[in-house]
Formats: sequence, structure tokens, C-alpha cells
Amino acid sequence: MSDDAIARALERATLLAARGPQRGGNPRVGCVLLDDTGQEIGAGWHRGAGTAHAEAAALAASDPARVAGSTAVITLEPCHHTGRTPPCSRALLAAGVRRVIYAAGDPDPRAAGGRAWLAAQGVDVSTAREAGVVPEIVGLAAELTRSWSAAVRRRRPWVLGKTATSLDGRVAAADGTSMWITGAAARAHGHTVRADVDAIVVGTGTLLADDPALTARGADGTPVVDQPLRVVLGRRAVPEAAAVRQGPGPWLHLATQDIAAALDHLWERGARRVLIEGGPTVLGAALRAGLVDELHSYLAPVLLGAGQPAVPDLGIGTLRDGLRWQRTETYHLGEDILITARRLEGAH
Amino acid sequence: MSDDAIARALERATLLAARGPQRGGNPRVGCVLLDDTGQEIGAGWHRGAGTAHAEAAALAASDPARVAGSTAVITLEPCHHTGRTPPCSRALLAAGVRRVIYAAGDPDPRAAGGRAWLAAQGVDVSTAREAGVVPEIVGLAAELTRSWSAAVRRRRPWVLGKTATSLDGRVAAADGTSMWITGAAARAHGHTVRADVDAIVVGTGTLLADDPALTARGADGTPVVDQPLRVVLGRRAVPEAAAVRQGPGPWLHLATQDIAAALDHLWERGARRVLIEGGPTVLGAALRAGLVDELHSYLAPVLLGAGQPAVPDLGIGTLRDGLRWQRTETYHLGEDILITARRLEGAH
Repeated sequence: MSDDAIARALERATLLAARGPQRGGNPRVGCVLLDDTGQEIGAGWHRGAGTAHAEAAALAASDPARVAGSTAVITLEPCHHTGRTPPCSRALLAAGVRRVIYAAGDPDPRAAGGRAWLAAQGVDVSTAREAGVVPEIVGLAAELTRSWSAAVRRRRPWVLGKTATSLDGRVAAADGTSMWITGAAARAHGHTVRADVDAIVVGTGTLLADDPALTARGADGTPVVDQPLRVVLGRRAVPEAAAVRQGPGPWLHLATQDIAAALDHLWERGARRVLIEGGPTVLGAALRAGLVDELHSYLAPVLLGAGQPAVPDLGIGTLRDGLRWQRTETYHLGEDILITARRLEGAH
Repeated sequence: MSDDAIARALERATLLAARGPQRGGNPRVGCVLLDDTGQEIGAGWHRGAGTAHAEAAALAASDPARVAGSTAVITLEPCHHTGRTPPCSRALLAAGVRRVIYAAGDPDPRAAGGRAWLAAQGVDVSTAREAGVVPEIVGLAAELTRSWSAAVRRRRPWVLGKTATSLDGRVAAADGTSMWITGAAARAHGHTVRADVDAIVVGTGTLLADDPALTARGADGTPVVDQPLRVVLGRRAVPEAAAVRQGPGPWLHLATQDIAAALDHLWERGARRVLIEGGPTVLGAALRAGLVDELHSYLAPVLLGAGQPAVPDLGIGTLRDGLRWQRTETYHLGEDILITARRLEGAH
């Protein structure tokens, strides 16, 4: 089989994997089965916790007679762990797959070992890099599991920090008005981000000021089926009439100001991706603690000149100590802009 | 001649015009001469004050024998004014041009009248819109002279306000350090903007804090040939050793805090495009007075949490009164972003 056939299969597996959810505790994975000539036999991807893994989905979509002797090209190392589904390592071997090529190693100590076990059973296992796939294509596949892998490696959720500000960095005007600095398109985008995390965190200050529902809604305004856990952080009580107490979806009051402890708690509850929606106090605590992995900065083309800054004093005295980020994407959302960025490796 | 030939000629005239400078007091104009069949005879554009107007450049580039009976497609109404060059209206008539089509009217009362005079001489004169060119193409041509036309109509320079900030809107860290918040690519872009204005304004506060040279430099760091006038605004003295006192190019100290008066003075000196480079005091005064037409917001992916805000208190109490802008372009400059925006019509 040509190197090119493997590279194309990995690109396809990556596109399929991206259809899966980022929420739900499991990584996004895609798998393509190829015959000896590089022809695709079947493909699959993981659709979320409790459903088939990508490898099982690909096997289920394939003619069993053609799978014997085939090559599996997968975005992530096959798991070797019995959870809600049986291990993919065994499923691939049982189906007669002879060669396995994967882009990224499994950082989960419970699930890892797929490579070693398959190799011990006589399967030809290699990474995509080892199989000659160019780094650009391997990188795109690995990118799918970046946040999940980091969470699993560090045993704490991947944290997205969100701000929605004026061009001069204000989240509210002098009198506290903040609805709406950004427009409908930016808010709709914010809902797609909410729908793709396990939990959303706001401080009691924001809760008392804005009374947000924190639900994830679709383009038509109706709540999405799988709601993230809505978390209120802080010692102040949550009013009986607070919108967050309404459904749909669960909510939780963590009566602490310790963001690290809150994230540990959310990790134990299975959260791998957590969105800090605000306000400045909670975001500031997370930034000071070096716990924000990804920044979503929505910017509206408006100047206010006064009002609450998006980011409170972080104890940064000089420019050299500023928290630097690596830009990843820029989105045009109506009149607004969204800049996404990741923490620079080794920084903060 | 087909409508399509006229539209294509206007597109070409627009591209040629865009090669000209925005500085120097004159508008950017392009001109294409067509024969009866829509074939191009010649084309030209204005290269800056003291050089030939676009119409004269196009005539000079054409075979005189073919110009008789031709059609001139021009981005701006031909001038009817003797300045450093003779009026284009007379030049077109003398060359035998029979038809004139232009995109935008001349807002300069001294130079206007080209249409009426040519029509009185029997030339068939119309706007591009009247000649059936679609609004999108006419709009691109008119865009070339937007800032110049606004300046001439209002008899004050078109003002660009520039900020270079952290994502949370700080121009300096808590200890005042500000070099460099943005990276080399953003600073290089800033130099291209400097090279395309007639004057650059900074306050004495910025001068004393940063001692900027304010020269416009090319990619290799050498000063461009035509330097903008460098203007220091404010009552404090300019130190003998200040970098702004060095060449190349002229500089000026306007010992006033009245930005409107300063702009009037610069208008009288011939400035049509003025860049306010900072600091927050001068920019704030211009914003409060409604004198900023275009905003250039350079944003670096860094959070500071403290330090000087880009925009001082503007007396805005509530979100509804925020200064709203219309985004025009977004540029990726290395790790930084530049958002350009124009004042919303009727706003501020």
C-alpha cells in the first residue's frame, strides 16, 4: 500500500472524528479500514460516551469478509481498556486486522497499552509518523485530541476562558450595563461552545448581576439535548429565583472561591472540558493560578473608556511578565471578532 | 460600447488609482481611455501632488490619433481647476475625448464643475451609475477617495486613531513598560500607515514617556523618502534631546491641548489625512470631540490585568452610549491582529 493511501485515510479519519462531540469525557476519534490496495473497506467515528468507539464503528460498517488482513488507520492509539465498551485492541485483532497505524498515543494510563498488546499478538503497529505520513497531516489528527489528552495527562479539565468585551477591554459600561456588548452572531457562537463542554462555571458575582440561565441553545433558541453541567462558584447563596435553578440540565453550587479545588471536583465528576464564562473575578483567579488553557476573546467594535475590565489585577507589574498566548483562530461574527488562543507551552 | 467594457475599465482604473499615495493632499484617481469598440487606448493614475493628474497621465500614455472620439472612464469627476497642473476638463476636450464616465463626484468646490463644463462643450458626461455600472464596482472606485472626499467636504483632515494594546485593552503594564506590546509585523504595518498620512500627532505625555522618532520607515528600517509632518501636541516643552527633533522630515510643536484647533491648523497646512498615534490623552480628546474617523486597533495576544487603558474616560456612562464602529478589515500580523473600523455614519 502506498504512503499516500495511508495519509489520505488519516485525513479522512480526522474529518470523521471531528464530527464527534468534544464533551462527554471521551476523545474524538476516527478510524478508516483499508484493504491491501489502499481501497477503503469501511470507516467510523466515536459519537460520544456510551456509543461505539471509532474502531468498533468502522468494523461494524465493513464487510467482515474483507476485514481479514486489512489495515486500520486511526487518529488515536486503540484503547486496551474495558469501560462501557470492550477494548478496541481485542476487537481489531478478532476481526483479523493485520496492520494498525495511529496518529497520537493514548495518554490515559487506564486505556493505554493498545500498541504493546497488539504488537505482542503479531499485529504490525506503528504511528502515522513512523509510517511516513507528513507531520502536517499527523498534526491535524493529533489536534483533535489536544484538549482531551492534556486533561487526561494532567488529571484536571482543559479550561476555556471566555471574555466578551469592547475593543478597549471592558465587559460592562460604567453603570454596569453589559447586555449586549457583542451581537447576536457572537452570542450564538458562544452557545455552540457551551454545547461542546462538560461544565460551565460562573462566579456568584456574575450570577447576582446578570442572572444567566447558562443553558446551551441552538440557532433557533431551543436548548440542545445534552446540556453541560452549570456550576456556580463562590460563597454567596444562589437566590431561589435564579435562572440557573431552572432546567434543562443539571446545575451545581460550589461554595468555594478555590478554582483549583472546583476543577478537581469537576474532574472527578468526569468533566474534561470546562468553560469559565465569567466574571472577571473567577477568570482572574484561574489566570493567576495558571489554569486557563484556551482563551476565547469576543471583541465588539465599540469603545467605552470606562467600566469593568475583562481581566482584574493579576499581580503583573511589567510587560515582560504579561500572560502571552498563541493565537489559533480568528472568526468574524457579524460586527464582532472572536480571537481564540492557547497558552504558550511553558508559559504562565 | 458594452456596459461590461465600461465596468471592466472602471475596475482597472480603480486598481491603477490604488497605486497612488493617500498622502500629499490630492485624491487617488485612475483613468482608462477606451475606443469605440471598448478596446483600451491608454491608462494612467495620479502619483502624488505636483505630478500629472490621472487624466493627463492616461492621455500621455495614449496614441493621440486614437484619442479623438474616445471614452474616458475615471474614478473621480475630472477637475475644472488650475492648480499646479491645468484642468483635466480642458485637457480631455482638447484631446478630442467624446464621452466621460466617472464614479464619484468631486467634493472640492474649487475643483468641481468638470461635469457641467464638459457637458456645455458637448461632451457626453455621466456617472458610472448612470452608465449602468453595478453599485459594487462603483463603490470600490468611490472607496478610493472616501477619506479625501470627507476631508474636503468637512474642511478638516480625515483622522485615523491608532491603539496598540493587550487583549484586555492596556497600552502599558503597571510599571509603564510598553515596548513592545505588539510584535515586529504589527510595528512594520504601522510604518506603512505612517507613510500614507500627511501628519502624525502625539501628545507631550507620550513624547516624554517613550521619546518616539515618529518617522516612517520601510521594511529594511530606512526612512521612506516622503516623511509625514510629525506633530507634538500639548503645552509641555519638547526636550532638546527629543528624538522627534532629529530628521528626516519636518516636525512641529503645537502648544495646545485643543485637538480641533490643531486639526484646523494641519488642514490649513494642507494635511488631508492625520494619524493620532497616542497617547490615550490625545486620542481620548479626539474621540470625545467626535473627530476620529477611522480606528486602527492593534491587539497582541497578551493579558496584563493592569496598566494604562488605551482609551481614557470618555464620559460614557452606559453601554447604549458607547462609541460604535463599523469593522472594515482584519489583518493577521505575526502573532498580533489589526482591526480597522470606521465611525458609523451619524454616530459619535
